[in-house]
Amino acid sequence: MRLPEADEFTVSSLSAAMTSGEESSESIVSQCLSRIAEREADLRAWVVVDRDGALEQAQQCDRDRATGTIRGPLHGIPVGIKDIVDVNGFVTGAGSPWFARRPVATADATLVTALRNAGAVILGKTVTTQFACFDPPPTRNPWHIDRTPGGSSSGSAAAVAARLVPIAIGSQTGGSITRPASFCGVCGLKPTFGTVSLDGVVPVASSLDHPGPIARRVADLRMTLAALTRQQLATEIKLGDPNDRPLRLGRLRGFFEDRTSSAMTVALNRTLDTLMAAGVQVFDVDVPRGFSDVLQHHRCIMACEAAAWHRTSFVEHRDEYGPCVASLIEEGLAASAIDYLAAREHQAALTQAMNSLVADGEIDALVTPATTGPAPDASTTGDPCMNAPWSYTGMPTVSFPIALSDDGLPLAIQLTGPRGGDWQLLDIAEVCERIVRC
Amino acid sequence: MRLPEADEFTVSSLSAAMTSGEESSESIVSQCLSRIAEREADLRAWVVVDRDGALEQAQQCDRDRATGTIRGPLHGIPVGIKDIVDVNGFVTGAGSPWFARRPVATADATLVTALRNAGAVILGKTVTTQFACFDPPPTRNPWHIDRTPGGSSSGSAAAVAARLVPIAIGSQTGGSITRPASFCGVCGLKPTFGTVSLDGVVPVASSLDHPGPIARRVADLRMTLAALTRQQLATEIKLGDPNDRPLRLGRLRGFFEDRTSSAMTVALNRTLDTLMAAGVQVFDVDVPRGFSDVLQHHRCIMACEAAAWHRTSFVEHRDEYGPCVASLIEEGLAASAIDYLAAREHQAALTQAMNSLVADGEIDALVTPATTGPAPDASTTGDPCMNAPWSYTGMPTVSFPIALSDDGLPLAIQLTGPRGGDWQLLDIAEVCERIVRC
Repeated sequence: MRLPEADEFTVSSLSAAMTSGEESSESIVSQCLSRIAEREADLRAWVVVDRDGALEQAQQCDRDRATGTIRGPLHGIPVGIKDIVDVNGFVTGAGSPWFARRPVATADATLVTALRNAGAVILGKTVTTQFACFDPPPTRNPWHIDRTPGGSSSGSAAAVAARLVPIAIGSQTGGSITRPASFCGVCGLKPTFGTVSLDGVVPVASSLDHPGPIARRVADLRMTLAALTRQQLATEIKLGDPNDRPLRLGRLRGFFEDRTSSAMTVALNRTLDTLMAAGVQVFDVDVPRGFSDVLQHHRCIMACEAAAWHRTSFVEHRDEYGPCVASLIEEGLAASAIDYLAAREHQAALTQAMNSLVADGEIDALVTPATTGPAPDASTTGDPCMNAPWSYTGMPTVSFPIALSDDGLPLAIQLTGPRGGDWQLLDIAEVCERIVRC
Repeated sequence: MRLPEADEFTVSSLSAAMTSGEESSESIVSQCLSRIAEREADLRAWVVVDRDGALEQAQQCDRDRATGTIRGPLHGIPVGIKDIVDVNGFVTGAGSPWFARRPVATADATLVTALRNAGAVILGKTVTTQFACFDPPPTRNPWHIDRTPGGSSSGSAAAVAARLVPIAIGSQTGGSITRPASFCGVCGLKPTFGTVSLDGVVPVASSLDHPGPIARRVADLRMTLAALTRQQLATEIKLGDPNDRPLRLGRLRGFFEDRTSSAMTVALNRTLDTLMAAGVQVFDVDVPRGFSDVLQHHRCIMACEAAAWHRTSFVEHRDEYGPCVASLIEEGLAASAIDYLAAREHQAALTQAMNSLVADGEIDALVTPATTGPAPDASTTGDPCMNAPWSYTGMPTVSFPIALSDDGLPLAIQLTGPRGGDWQLLDIAEVCERIVRC
């Protein structure tokens, strides 16, 4: 395997092929179905593939295109949906045995409606860890079958990496978009908190949950965000233009270094050298006071909010909860209101402090490793510590692969922008991706 | 005493007198100071009166007026500030012995800055119950010296009712604006949650706290809201105009009746008859499902958030907390995170259900008694049960007196509008006040 190229199974290359008549949506969906038939037994990325429904949707897209109707930026593009998101006619299983016994969803989640309105073909539901928490799923990493794809958007990341589908929807409460995307050598966008609707999405923790896309290139993240938010695409990249002022990245110091493997440290340093050689300015930025308490307070909020939501069903279905999610819920059930509120207060204060690092215009984006290192073995889903701070502060992040480790596994960095600065952050990430990967 | 008339010590009458030259801001402030000298020993409405500072501010307003500068809708008007709100140079005592030993505030709260920018003269700090909770304050009701003025904005309501100051700022977490205003025969506005800044205000419970004005007539509430939010005054009243469609009020059924004294029930029925005779339409509206749990969940949120804020100081200063606030904090300290979150979830769901009762255009405002009955004796601050539902849902309320009870104490009703509908609600309340009090 190699890291995705801009012209290889991306939204823009597939759209161009459909425009030229070289491909149809039906032929693209058929290719996805063939690849799934080849790889699914090993990868186990899908809960369900809607073979007939996807082909029908694709044929309709092709008929629409023939009459000149292009519904939106994802017209005819197949998409995988993490199985915590309602898709009309399918059970939302959320990786849970007892949830999988519930009736089918009778309506699409708001974000699925938005994707359909933008022309997307819903190919099927991708595997999530149980209730989007930490219990390892059956899914494996396409780069190495003994490794985890990461979690909790395990199926979405593995499917995009293995070219089973060009884009997929994930969600992040700790590190559940960025971590699997990075372990699998593809790109992840965790938008600003609140940007993508949570309506019809099984919650983990309502103050921390972020749906967002996983894709093969940063440009495809932008296309999918446009579809999800029904916004027009920004067509120009304003920053990093040779005639413009140089791009300024802040390398965040004081939390991430100690948690980073040597392979990742080497790759990050090389990447920053490459960026600086191309004219990008890189400054050291210290984490604000109180940053070291992030993980503890993040865990407290996640545990309490998960416990509040599972409160009743955890009694009824206790023996069907995996050990990681059960332990999280038990922690939350035992927590006091004032500890939860202290964590929320810390979250609000740190969000303000962190956001001001990039909101004042001195720095365009913060850069940090996207994971501690390459994907570990499949007995865990890896450590979300590099990503949880951004789920906590609700600031948008874009991650993309930068290199392969010595054992041939992908490594990625993440860029973080100010809340609400998602489009500009995507522009910056695309500039950096182009420099690093050219 | 009698209920305030539109031309008696109101913002508009005082402003007109200043415009005509009949009064100056200095003469108005001097009248306030004389009235305070007469009544304060009995009423105990003030923590501190800034005699010299207020006279200086008034003289500056008079000089500005002489040169044609009118700073805003409260130019030259004295205002009392509840002593949980920071006023530069004064201790914010919050009704607490240990708080009163802290250093003076070195900056104005945002809302005080807004009042000064609108031309207001800050006359002094008014008495609050301890930490704006339920322990009875020394303040007494100007209508009957043995009765409570209500709480927690006790001094603000008593001072406005006794003509010690034309308007005063209060705050409401349960029923702390509407209840004292109603017990004292004056008007109260609890704006939509989030409308008036809490910056520089000692919190009770951050999800429930609402600063707002107490004034002698509804029109003065509008002037003060304009000052607080730096908005232009709406000059026309759109609803209730004879050429317009009739005003439609919803009488809320299923919670309030059982808690209402017979005096209040009689007064409310008479008021509704008067309004209907004037062409107002009155419909019965049932409270939504889950309404009966409001008080329990409101108390839980208030207790938890108060406990989170007082957590440390409650250990250090335990013996200086009054029994009511101590019991609230102890409840909060003992509460679980999941009970708090269940209450917050109920709050969110009920807010949506309640708001939709008035947001869809079928009903212009809901009408309910403003208190259970007339002011009780001074051993309590009265029952906030009529008001807490609106602090809980964050919907704006305007209350105004409608009658005197047989024992000569004021009774009031409250109108409730949709979130964000504060200006229209003030228009409606002014129409109703005019019909009821003409």
